[in-house]
Amino acid sequence: MTEASPLTLNRLSIYLRCLQDLSRRGVERISSTDMADLYQLSASQIRKDLAQFGEFGIRGVGYEVEPLAYQLRSILGLDQAYGMVIVGIGALGTALARYPGFRQGDFQVVGLVDRDPRKVGGRLGRLVIHPPEELPRLVRETGARIGVLTVPSSAAQGALDAVVAAGIRAVLNFAPAQVRASPGVRIKAVDPRIDLEELAYFLQR
Amino acid sequence: MTEASPLTLNRLSIYLRCLQDLSRRGVERISSTDMADLYQLSASQIRKDLAQFGEFGIRGVGYEVEPLAYQLRSILGLDQAYGMVIVGIGALGTALARYPGFRQGDFQVVGLVDRDPRKVGGRLGRLVIHPPEELPRLVRETGARIGVLTVPSSAAQGALDAVVAAGIRAVLNFAPAQVRASPGVRIKAVDPRIDLEELAYFLQR
Repeated sequence: MTEASPLTLNRLSIYLRCLQDLSRRGVERISSTDMADLYQLSASQIRKDLAQFGEFGIRGVGYEVEPLAYQLRSILGLDQAYGMVIVGIGALGTALARYPGFRQGDFQVVGLVDRDPRKVGGRLGRLVIHPPEELPRLVRETGARIGVLTVPSSAAQGALDAVVAAGIRAVLNFAPAQVRASPGVRIKAVDPRIDLEELAYFLQR
Repeated sequence: MTEASPLTLNRLSIYLRCLQDLSRRGVERISSTDMADLYQLSASQIRKDLAQFGEFGIRGVGYEVEPLAYQLRSILGLDQAYGMVIVGIGALGTALARYPGFRQGDFQVVGLVDRDPRKVGGRLGRLVIHPPEELPRLVRETGARIGVLTVPSSAAQGALDAVVAAGIRAVLNFAPAQVRASPGVRIKAVDPRIDLEELAYFLQR
């Protein structure tokens, strides 16, 4: 199977949330049309996206809510847990480390790194802040697989190189800087403007 | 014209970034196929999305990069500026207030609110932290049109009601809580897990 595009994957994440909501409401089966109406999605897009991964719906019956949610979790890799190392413990790094959803569950913060000697050794909850030199050991000992970069733009490339050298292959980059990594490393840039542009469209109408 | 879906709008935001990148590289025209190849998008999706808003491309020639970027900015409402009020000046609120991209430009933080009397009156850069009672005056005087909720989940509905009562119609909600507003108010929930799920898919392959 060819690799799914980021936009397709983001839609699968949204479908998964819809299915989890349906499950909480006690809905057992739903058609793509009803799901599209309920959550303001496109029925043909739902069918097309899911068809990339297999045959899920039954014609005239629709999708089975819980089995499909289970399949989507499996496709997205959410049947495993992923440890995250945060590099850059400023305001944003601190906020992410404290985010309740990242203290446990399948995406969990397991390591903190900052190059400021005044921060190193400090605690944030149950975690201690480590210096960059300890990244390889930290990644090895915690099994972290995702690096989260919350450093200033000027430090972003250096922080990326450091996490990759420590064995990390997937990186969430909050620094508003273009960074480059070797093939085989996936970088996801977080762009806080995208959500704001959706609101702008609504406000100017 | 019917209202475009959030997913279509998010794709327009991505196309706009591609066009800005092409413009910086000195590219004047590009076909949907070349743009799709260059940025790992779908050419048919690009054509379909843009066709919702008008006739932009010339058959056999492609799109004119700068004029199309200009049109997309206009469709998204980015030919105006939007002031933002941040409610909840904890770690995340502080990080957003300090984010360089939000200190100037079309999305600019113009007001800070926190209900903690120990924070009220404090400064963050050139802005002072106000108590919630001052929200209506703050919104009126700054012309803020977007509310950013960075409060704990338990305070999210109260914070939403307060910004709506103050005249705000578009809200970015970072609190991991379901909130409800009256019709005519647009709420965009920020879900930090969506990007992580895209990385999980890559890691488990």
